[in-house]
Amino acid sequence: MALVVQKFGGTSVGSIDRMRNVARRAIAAQKKGDKIVVIVSAMSGETNRLLGLAHQMVAVPDAREMDVIAATGEQVAAALTAMAIQNEGGQARSLLGHQVKILTDGAFTKARIKTIEGSKIFSTLEQGQIAVVAGFQGVNEHGDITTLGRGGSDTSAVAIAAAIGADACEIYTDVDGVYTTDPNICPSARKIPRISYEEMLELASLGAKVLQIRSVEIAMKYGVPVHVRSSFSDVEGTWVTGEDKALEDVVVAGVAYDKNEARVHCVGLNDKPGVVAELFGAMADKNISVDMIIQNVSKESHDRADVTFTLAKTDLLRAKPFIEEVAKRLGSQEVRYDEDIVKVSIVGLGMRSHAGIAAKMFRIMAAEGINIQAISTSEIKVSCLIHAKYTELAVRALHDGFGLAKAVER
Amino acid sequence: MALVVQKFGGTSVGSIDRMRNVARRAIAAQKKGDKIVVIVSAMSGETNRLLGLAHQMVAVPDAREMDVIAATGEQVAAALTAMAIQNEGGQARSLLGHQVKILTDGAFTKARIKTIEGSKIFSTLEQGQIAVVAGFQGVNEHGDITTLGRGGSDTSAVAIAAAIGADACEIYTDVDGVYTTDPNICPSARKIPRISYEEMLELASLGAKVLQIRSVEIAMKYGVPVHVRSSFSDVEGTWVTGEDKALEDVVVAGVAYDKNEARVHCVGLNDKPGVVAELFGAMADKNISVDMIIQNVSKESHDRADVTFTLAKTDLLRAKPFIEEVAKRLGSQEVRYDEDIVKVSIVGLGMRSHAGIAAKMFRIMAAEGINIQAISTSEIKVSCLIHAKYTELAVRALHDGFGLAKAVER
Repeated sequence: MALVVQKFGGTSVGSIDRMRNVARRAIAAQKKGDKIVVIVSAMSGETNRLLGLAHQMVAVPDAREMDVIAATGEQVAAALTAMAIQNEGGQARSLLGHQVKILTDGAFTKARIKTIEGSKIFSTLEQGQIAVVAGFQGVNEHGDITTLGRGGSDTSAVAIAAAIGADACEIYTDVDGVYTTDPNICPSARKIPRISYEEMLELASLGAKVLQIRSVEIAMKYGVPVHVRSSFSDVEGTWVTGEDKALEDVVVAGVAYDKNEARVHCVGLNDKPGVVAELFGAMADKNISVDMIIQNVSKESHDRADVTFTLAKTDLLRAKPFIEEVAKRLGSQEVRYDEDIVKVSIVGLGMRSHAGIAAKMFRIMAAEGINIQAISTSEIKVSCLIHAKYTELAVRALHDGFGLAKAVER
Repeated sequence: MALVVQKFGGTSVGSIDRMRNVARRAIAAQKKGDKIVVIVSAMSGETNRLLGLAHQMVAVPDAREMDVIAATGEQVAAALTAMAIQNEGGQARSLLGHQVKILTDGAFTKARIKTIEGSKIFSTLEQGQIAVVAGFQGVNEHGDITTLGRGGSDTSAVAIAAAIGADACEIYTDVDGVYTTDPNICPSARKIPRISYEEMLELASLGAKVLQIRSVEIAMKYGVPVHVRSSFSDVEGTWVTGEDKALEDVVVAGVAYDKNEARVHCVGLNDKPGVVAELFGAMADKNISVDMIIQNVSKESHDRADVTFTLAKTDLLRAKPFIEEVAKRLGSQEVRYDEDIVKVSIVGLGMRSHAGIAAKMFRIMAAEGINIQAISTSEIKVSCLIHAKYTELAVRALHDGFGLAKAVER
């Protein structure tokens, strides 16, 4: 008898009929003798509808109130799914973030889970019920509703799986696994049967939308086996697990791209120690994550520095006023923005032991005439910032160049 | 400085623009120096949309899960209203049933409030915030979400007003007060400036949709002055207060009708002691309220009794199976149902000291050729069950017959 968490995304619960499918799948798993915890996202489109309502009211809605609204999407989906299970002859009960008690920090709209109490879930399971937990939501220490950010239901699922010691966390989605790259861009993309947490982490953080990055971090930290699979078939998907020898032999596991970043270019800052710390300290205080950072001596004056960095497009509107305020205070003459960029990356555990992978990536880009605006690397990843118009060209060239189109059975 | 509860119904928060109106009204009241607690219903249409979703899933949804879904309507409205207040330059925070802590019994979809903690509301007010509380909802002792039944936001408002010792509870609605009867039926209906709790209670229980009955009970119990008024104007509405001499002089304050009841006729029950107790005990066990009850010797057999009673049409579907089961067990040959009925009533404090009011009512009905199927009376009310087709005729005849069309200044 296993303890299994099944997470269903927005398209998997996107209609009454699809919820019935979810119900049948959960009941079938329970009938095999497993204890089942179902985590649901909001019905597809619902979160956008709710955000739209808030934005009709005010351009920049209060984050606390935004979460109160957004959390209702999963609340409704959880209760409807519980009803669907009951209607198919099963027993189920919905549980919300404050009922399970998923305690988060106080960062509204992008809260992080601190602790999860398992007792409510266990007592529900012990009654023979399927526990249907609303994803994406928690409460802070004051009892305010918080949400975990886009894709936060993955995080809910993996965190709950870790908290209750589940044997597996199944992530049901509208694709049947993790691919070597986006099949919509590259028809020769292939499904990866097994991938390490580390690789998945890089792919997730680079915009492969299959799993939310924090969910992979938590899975890695607690060793939760994650199975990404299709909610519309019974085909095995991709297992995300700890690394082993077979996984380490693959130099490049996948090619990812991320169109969600914007580039900010602060021209002519005072070139003194602490200037950059002040700029990025201010960003951190506002809970805005910065990704790539490049500092150059300014073209305009040798005692000044140009600083370029990228951040999420969704944070840009909010960040602009104080970026400009801080930049001005630090002596900058101008701040420029560019949203027409993409970050293309290659990821693979094997990079750690293979030299020349980055150089090969740059050669492939050069051969296609693509100008690289910025580079960042990690142990198992190389990323290049390029003009957005080259996205498809770059992805296909890298996918072919690193031989991913050939069957990589592992 | 007064402490004022302002409750806004579904039409008053039915659109983004109307919520802005609500916000301006609350802020204006706060600027006069009062502390303001706003209670909101779901945006008009939203509760029906949510119930519709549940009924798409299953014909008779689980009541616990139904409440989880239904409560989101007020949750969204409360957060949007808080945003509206912020957008108009005020400070506001939304509070949900489980946050305020509105503790109810466990009767899902029709829960009753047991206690309300005032501390969260007070601490919010002390920060200079307008507290925007989601109406209609609470939690039971297990932390499950419960709802208070249709119109439950009135109850939330008055109960909160009582709990925090508010100076007044303003009920903003789409009509500008309580009328002598339904103006849609009777053009000569007049707004009543002041009415007693007792009269309002009878009117509310008889289908005058302005205030939910339990809200009036609570207002009476705790002496909360209630001001029913229009959310679209600043005109004084109707004050519902304790009785005084002026109110007692009015013999008939209003004429009400209620189309929401169905008649059940159990033919030929065993005429033994305890039979009726068993029938209605079974109803009470299922939490179904019965209104008028008439027991006759059966026309068909003298050792048998016919029992007729009325209940809410909304309970009929659920009640039918066990009414028939119990009736059969008690020897009944047949159970008949009639949904084509209406209950017409006259209400007035002055009835207590005036004889012949009921007789006058029956004469008025007879003069119009209206057959009375059942009668029930209280100290300050007389009700007649008649065929639904006579509704308008009966209401107008009674309104005129008791001289309500003439200005009743009080």
